[in-house]
Amino acid sequence: MTDPILLTPGPLTTRIETRRAMLRDWGSRDPAFIALTAELRARLLAVAQGGATHACVPLQGSGTFIVEATLATLLRPGDKLLVLANGAYGERIAAITRRMGRAVEVLRWPEDRPVEPGRVAAALAADPGLTHVALVHCETTTGLLNPLAEVAAVVAAAGRRLLLDAMSSFGAIGIDLRSLPVTAVMASSNKCLEGVPGIGFALIERTVLAAAEGVSPSVSLDLHAQWRGLEKDGQWRFTPPVQVVAALVEALRLLEAEGGPPARLARYAENCRTLLAGMRRLGFSLYLEDALQAPIIATFRMPEARPLRFAEFYDALAARGFLIYPGKLTQAETFRIGCIGAIGRRDMERLLAAVEAVLGEMATA
Amino acid sequence: MTDPILLTPGPLTTRIETRRAMLRDWGSRDPAFIALTAELRARLLAVAQGGATHACVPLQGSGTFIVEATLATLLRPGDKLLVLANGAYGERIAAITRRMGRAVEVLRWPEDRPVEPGRVAAALAADPGLTHVALVHCETTTGLLNPLAEVAAVVAAAGRRLLLDAMSSFGAIGIDLRSLPVTAVMASSNKCLEGVPGIGFALIERTVLAAAEGVSPSVSLDLHAQWRGLEKDGQWRFTPPVQVVAALVEALRLLEAEGGPPARLARYAENCRTLLAGMRRLGFSLYLEDALQAPIIATFRMPEARPLRFAEFYDALAARGFLIYPGKLTQAETFRIGCIGAIGRRDMERLLAAVEAVLGEMATA
Repeated sequence: MTDPILLTPGPLTTRIETRRAMLRDWGSRDPAFIALTAELRARLLAVAQGGATHACVPLQGSGTFIVEATLATLLRPGDKLLVLANGAYGERIAAITRRMGRAVEVLRWPEDRPVEPGRVAAALAADPGLTHVALVHCETTTGLLNPLAEVAAVVAAAGRRLLLDAMSSFGAIGIDLRSLPVTAVMASSNKCLEGVPGIGFALIERTVLAAAEGVSPSVSLDLHAQWRGLEKDGQWRFTPPVQVVAALVEALRLLEAEGGPPARLARYAENCRTLLAGMRRLGFSLYLEDALQAPIIATFRMPEARPLRFAEFYDALAARGFLIYPGKLTQAETFRIGCIGAIGRRDMERLLAAVEAVLGEMATA
Repeated sequence: MTDPILLTPGPLTTRIETRRAMLRDWGSRDPAFIALTAELRARLLAVAQGGATHACVPLQGSGTFIVEATLATLLRPGDKLLVLANGAYGERIAAITRRMGRAVEVLRWPEDRPVEPGRVAAALAADPGLTHVALVHCETTTGLLNPLAEVAAVVAAAGRRLLLDAMSSFGAIGIDLRSLPVTAVMASSNKCLEGVPGIGFALIERTVLAAAEGVSPSVSLDLHAQWRGLEKDGQWRFTPPVQVVAALVEALRLLEAEGGPPARLARYAENCRTLLAGMRRLGFSLYLEDALQAPIIATFRMPEARPLRFAEFYDALAARGFLIYPGKLTQAETFRIGCIGAIGRRDMERLLAAVEAVLGEMATA
C-alpha cells in the first residue's frame, strides 16, 4: 500500500527528499552537524527577515514545548501576560502560563470571530500591569487567521511586547520582522515548513533574549541558556534529534527552491480554493466566513440533511488513502481538512472524488 | 563518502533498518500510529519487566527533558531530593531540581569513585526530610557503573523512593523491576536501544504516577497528564515526533531479535574488551579502574609521554571515518570512546588500526 496523504495540521505529508535526509547518522558534536545547525538557524531567521534583530533558538520537542519555553524564558515573576484567545491554542497558552505561576489574563472571542485590535487596545489601557501580549496567528482549532499587523501595531503603540504563536502559519503566511513589531515568533518543524515533527523554534529579539538569563524555572526549556550554548560553540546543550534537524534543513532548502513563503502560500491557497469549492458542491459548508479562513486548514460542518458519523467517514477516506482530521470545537459537529504539506491541487481533486464516492456508498448503505 | 562510525554516547550508529523506518509519513492521530505507540510503550516496559507495576510514559525531547519531567511530576513542594553525584549527570539532576524550586541535597564522590551505599544510608538516616533519591546508573561523564542493586536496597530499607537515570544503561545492562525497588526509571531512545534521538521515556510505578495529578509546574513536562492522555485514547497530548517513534519501535524489534539486553550487553562487552586491550597496547590508559568500567563508554587519558591535541586527534580519526568524543572531566586531560550502537568487534579493530596509523603520522609530523 502506498503511504496515505495526510490532510492534517501536521505531522503532514512531506517530500521524500525530506524524509531521505534522515537516512544518515550524525555525531551531534561533529563539525558537520554544527554546520547543519548553523544553516538551520540562518534559514529560519531568513524566512521572517529577522537576521538584523532576532536570534533563532531551536528546541527539542513539539510546538507546545517551544511555546512554553518562550513564556518561561521571557515572563518574569512580576510580569503579566494578556492572552488573546479565540480557540484551543490561545487557551493552551493561558493554561501553560497559569501552571508555571505567572500572572495571566485572557481576552476571549467566539471561535468563529477574529481578535479585535480595538478591544486589545482598551484592555492594555485599562491594566498598566500587563507587560506582554500573546496572539495565535492562525488558530488551528478552526483555521481562522487573526489580524496580526493590526494587533502588533496596537501592542507596540501601548509599549508592550507581542509573543506570536505562528505555529501553523510560519513558512507560508508572510511575517516580516523588519517592519512588524514582534518580540518573539514561535513555530515548529512540521507544519508549513514541511519538515518532520520533533523540533520547535523561536525567533526572539536579541536584546530581550540577552537579558533573560536565569529567568526560566525550567532548565530544559530555558531558551536563554539554549541560545548561549549555540552561540558559544554551535552545539545544542542537550542531544538534538539529529535526523529531524537534517530533515528540516532539507525542507528549508526545498522551500527556497519553491520560491519561498509567497510561492508556498500560493500553492496552499490553490489547495484551499479547490477544497472549498468541491466540498460545497458536495453539500458541506465551511464553519468560518470565507474572509476569515486561512489557507492552512479548513473546518467543515457535518451536513444537516445527511449527518455522517465522523469515525465512519474517516475510516472510509482512510481506506482510500486520505487521512482527514477531527474537529476541535465544542459547539458544532465538525471535521477538519488540511491544505498544507507536500500536496497540490491534484491531490485535492483526488480527495474530493474520494469524498464523493464515500458519500455515495454511505447513502446506499 | 560512507557514513562515519559514531563512537559516542549517542546519537550513535544505528542500523539502516532503523533509519529506513523513518521514510514514512504518519498521521499522529491515526489508528496505525496509535498502534505503533502502544507497541512502543509495551516493548519499553518489557525491557525492564515492568508490566505488572510500572507505566511507560514517553516524552518528546532529549534525555534531559525526561529527567526534568520525571522530577517535575513526582517531586511535590514539600519533598526533598537527595542526589548521589559522581559526574556531570548527577550534578545536572541537582541543577534541574534547584531551578524548579524543589529542595535538593547533593552527596558527592570523586568522578572516579562509585556511589557508596553506606554513605547513602547514613545520609537518609540523618535527614528524615529526604523523600526521594536520584542515582545515575552509568555515569556517561566517565563510563562508571554505579552499584544500583545495593543503592536501591538501602533506599527501600529507609522507606524513600529511588529515581534512576538509566540513560546510558537501559537496554543493555539489566534492570528488573520485578525485584528492584525503583519508583522511576528514565532513559532515552538513542543510546543502548539504538534508536535515533528525539524521545525519552520514564517507567514509573503506576500508583505513584496516578497520585501525581497537577504536581508538575510545567504543562509540557507533565508526565501524569501525558500518561492520562495516552491511557484515554492512545494518543500523545502534543504532536509526537512520529518518525522517531517509528525508528524506536523498529530498534526495539531488532533488540528482541538480537536476544534482548543480555545479548546486547555481551556484544558491547566484547566491543569494550577489544577497545581497552587495543588502546593499552597503543599506550593509552583507562581513566577508571577496570572493575568500575561499564561497557558503554570508556574514558582514556592522553598519553603523558606523547601528549596529543584532542582536536587534531579527532580530525585525523574523523578523516578515517571514526567520530570519537571529547572528555567531560575537569581534572584530567581525557577523551572518550563509546562501545555502544550498531557496531561490533570488527569496527573496534578497524578503529584501533586507525588510531595506530594516526599516532604514527603524528609522531613523524
